[in-house]
Amino acid sequence: MSSQQRDVAIKYVRKNKEKFLSILKEVVRIPSISADPAHGADMRQAAEWLVNQLRAVGMQKVQIFPTAHHPILYGEYLGVPGAPTVLIYGHYDVQPADPLSLWKSGPFEPTTRGENLYARGVSDMKGQILAVISAVEALRATGGIPVNLKWLIEGEEEVGSPSLADFIASHKDLLACDFAFNPDAGMIGKDAPTITYALRGLAYFELRVFGPPNDLHSGIFGGVVHNPAIVLAELIAGMHDSKGRITLPGFYDRVRELTPEERAELARIPADEQYYLEKSGAPALFGEEGYTPNERTGARPSLDVNGMLSGFTASGPKTIIPASAMAKISCRLVPDQRPHEVYEQMKRYLEEKAPKTVRWELIEMHGGNPSISDRDNPGVRAYASALETVWGVRPYFKREGGSIPVVATMQDLLGVESVIGGFGLPDDNFHAPNEKLHLPTWYKGIEALVHFFLNLQP
Amino acid sequence: MSSQQRDVAIKYVRKNKEKFLSILKEVVRIPSISADPAHGADMRQAAEWLVNQLRAVGMQKVQIFPTAHHPILYGEYLGVPGAPTVLIYGHYDVQPADPLSLWKSGPFEPTTRGENLYARGVSDMKGQILAVISAVEALRATGGIPVNLKWLIEGEEEVGSPSLADFIASHKDLLACDFAFNPDAGMIGKDAPTITYALRGLAYFELRVFGPPNDLHSGIFGGVVHNPAIVLAELIAGMHDSKGRITLPGFYDRVRELTPEERAELARIPADEQYYLEKSGAPALFGEEGYTPNERTGARPSLDVNGMLSGFTASGPKTIIPASAMAKISCRLVPDQRPHEVYEQMKRYLEEKAPKTVRWELIEMHGGNPSISDRDNPGVRAYASALETVWGVRPYFKREGGSIPVVATMQDLLGVESVIGGFGLPDDNFHAPNEKLHLPTWYKGIEALVHFFLNLQP
Repeated sequence: MSSQQRDVAIKYVRKNKEKFLSILKEVVRIPSISADPAHGADMRQAAEWLVNQLRAVGMQKVQIFPTAHHPILYGEYLGVPGAPTVLIYGHYDVQPADPLSLWKSGPFEPTTRGENLYARGVSDMKGQILAVISAVEALRATGGIPVNLKWLIEGEEEVGSPSLADFIASHKDLLACDFAFNPDAGMIGKDAPTITYALRGLAYFELRVFGPPNDLHSGIFGGVVHNPAIVLAELIAGMHDSKGRITLPGFYDRVRELTPEERAELARIPADEQYYLEKSGAPALFGEEGYTPNERTGARPSLDVNGMLSGFTASGPKTIIPASAMAKISCRLVPDQRPHEVYEQMKRYLEEKAPKTVRWELIEMHGGNPSISDRDNPGVRAYASALETVWGVRPYFKREGGSIPVVATMQDLLGVESVIGGFGLPDDNFHAPNEKLHLPTWYKGIEALVHFFLNLQP
Repeated sequence: MSSQQRDVAIKYVRKNKEKFLSILKEVVRIPSISADPAHGADMRQAAEWLVNQLRAVGMQKVQIFPTAHHPILYGEYLGVPGAPTVLIYGHYDVQPADPLSLWKSGPFEPTTRGENLYARGVSDMKGQILAVISAVEALRATGGIPVNLKWLIEGEEEVGSPSLADFIASHKDLLACDFAFNPDAGMIGKDAPTITYALRGLAYFELRVFGPPNDLHSGIFGGVVHNPAIVLAELIAGMHDSKGRITLPGFYDRVRELTPEERAELARIPADEQYYLEKSGAPALFGEEGYTPNERTGARPSLDVNGMLSGFTASGPKTIIPASAMAKISCRLVPDQRPHEVYEQMKRYLEEKAPKTVRWELIEMHGGNPSISDRDNPGVRAYASALETVWGVRPYFKREGGSIPVVATMQDLLGVESVIGGFGLPDDNFHAPNEKLHLPTWYKGIEALVHFFLNLQP
């Protein structure tokens, strides 16, 4: 039956493109901007619209859970005993649309130009949720949904997901699953189907260096009082060695080394030095010796100064030795590093290196664990195979330099890995004017999701 | 005649203490705050009061020269052909008095408590000018002024002397003299008569480091884009070596080494490590190996970061690679360093050290030459002998870490050295509430000035 349903379901998708598109247009008309309190009613409307849509494709126990800010949506279909249960993650909130003057058509008036549909949230990520709903509709209409599904759709992703971790922690049974599917990451190009299998974590600190109790006259004390800004500079300078490696004691102890096979896989990704030069606009690249740019951003940890402040910074000269200096310093972490351990390493580094001429303080600000999925687990295999079926090329396995905190949260609280995919493209202008969705890719994505769910059936 | 006049003049000073004190009280009642436009009339009143006082002690060609802000006063007595001509420098403006609530008596209501007279400007430096005028009165009343005098009294010292250099440059003949006397520096203690014979200069820069054109996401680019704040930190860190020496190429080439005799002289000054620790409040001292704190602040150059700014400095975390980073960096210079040469050295350092991953810009902001007087010139000898006569101890020869720009200006434009002295004390609270003048020291100062001028006669 599977192979037969496969053909019929794909045909259903192809026949119903216009319908799927018009449903998508409905939801992107709702300006569900979570950051703007003026859009509270729109947020509720988007939530209502989505739960109706989940019910329409056969989901049960569909509920709207209130939170302190915007509600979390849940739904499930558990009709296939013995089949795996996939927890679909999504968010129905969108970024603010300003500056409005830069939009070629209204951000909430979905407009097709060429192969793209333009509207705020169409790629990030209402289009991604609707791709899954459309695939489920196609399967349901052509023989039934072949796996068990749960849905967790939040309304606060664009404001830092303040309610999500608590909700997951207090609904572990409800959300129990075999793995999660998170279509919020996208593809590296329209002909390059992509699976993101690892995300970096974060350890964020503020380092404060204190010298004299007040700013001092640099004429009277210059040469006998150690300048806290210079001490801070020396401490920061010592955090990298001449090969671009981070010198905090023990920093690399828990870093998983790349295997030759994984390096070969990462080397397939069409993002070379030139790509990073163009994307960043930096005069030249930098980084740890012995690794490609792709490996450095995805599979190796990094340390950055995010902000630095000391003394007199207005225009003109002022001849002081500042009383103190401050830097915000953060590390991107890779498996199996842990933020609090890196805090301890940073503390040890400072204990060893900071001179007695100053006092210092290290504040642990926030952190998130890195995450990695087994590229050979059944969920990833099923999704990879589905992508290859539709695009005709083996998908790219990508490690993402940033974080998708919900992935680590689910790993920590539910003990499950996430299959991270989706059909957004790098030039979709998420968080910018003229956000768009490439429709041919989106339709292919719906087909891929049909294959994905069929691939998962026992 | 000299030794006879000496005794009579000193007696005159001792008999007229109350008169001198009441004249001083008159002038410190005038709130001549140059920084505050509301005090324009007070500035003019102080100028008028002073020129009258100069006339009263026999000065001729007394004039008020208007400037763009506050007038400059001039007067002269050239009645002793063959005797040296001394140019007396002073300023009649004072610092603002706020916070008023911290004053025990009104800042412009001179009040005697114990041995001190309290009022704004009483030490810095109306009291110093009046000490010279009082000494001149005593000499004039007891046989005549034994040297030629010129006076240059500005009203803008507390706002950076914006008109002074131009005035000197355009009145070189008027101001021609053998040497200048500047009583704006004071003594290191009431029992420690002091001559400041060297001042450090200044070279002030702003260094800007540019990376990517915009702030970048530290997750996506962390590890491949060189962080401009880290590059700036590395550049700053490299400006000192492990012995506290400054590494700019050629930086020490024109630094005059201290002779053993000069080191012995500086070692007499009662300002040891403990003194600098207490004065600065720093947890521990720092500095160039092989030099005492006193030598480091007075006779060795220094390099400080006066301000530093990059990226996100508000509260909380923001995960960016900043597009740029900035530091204000200044060097205190000693003879015979020159600010523009140090700028060239800093540029060369950056050309050698800055990585190709960033662009940078070095802005030359302002500078001043260091200055030094021959401790053996006739002016210094005459003043030193006068101090020793009155205090009974050989005066301390001090090198000052800060700058008195007018000293270098006079050296550059008039080709003359300055005898730098005066009778202020370190705890006089200049620029702070409850500024005071130690009256026993002030009276001794008037006597010393009588001796000084008598010592100068041929």
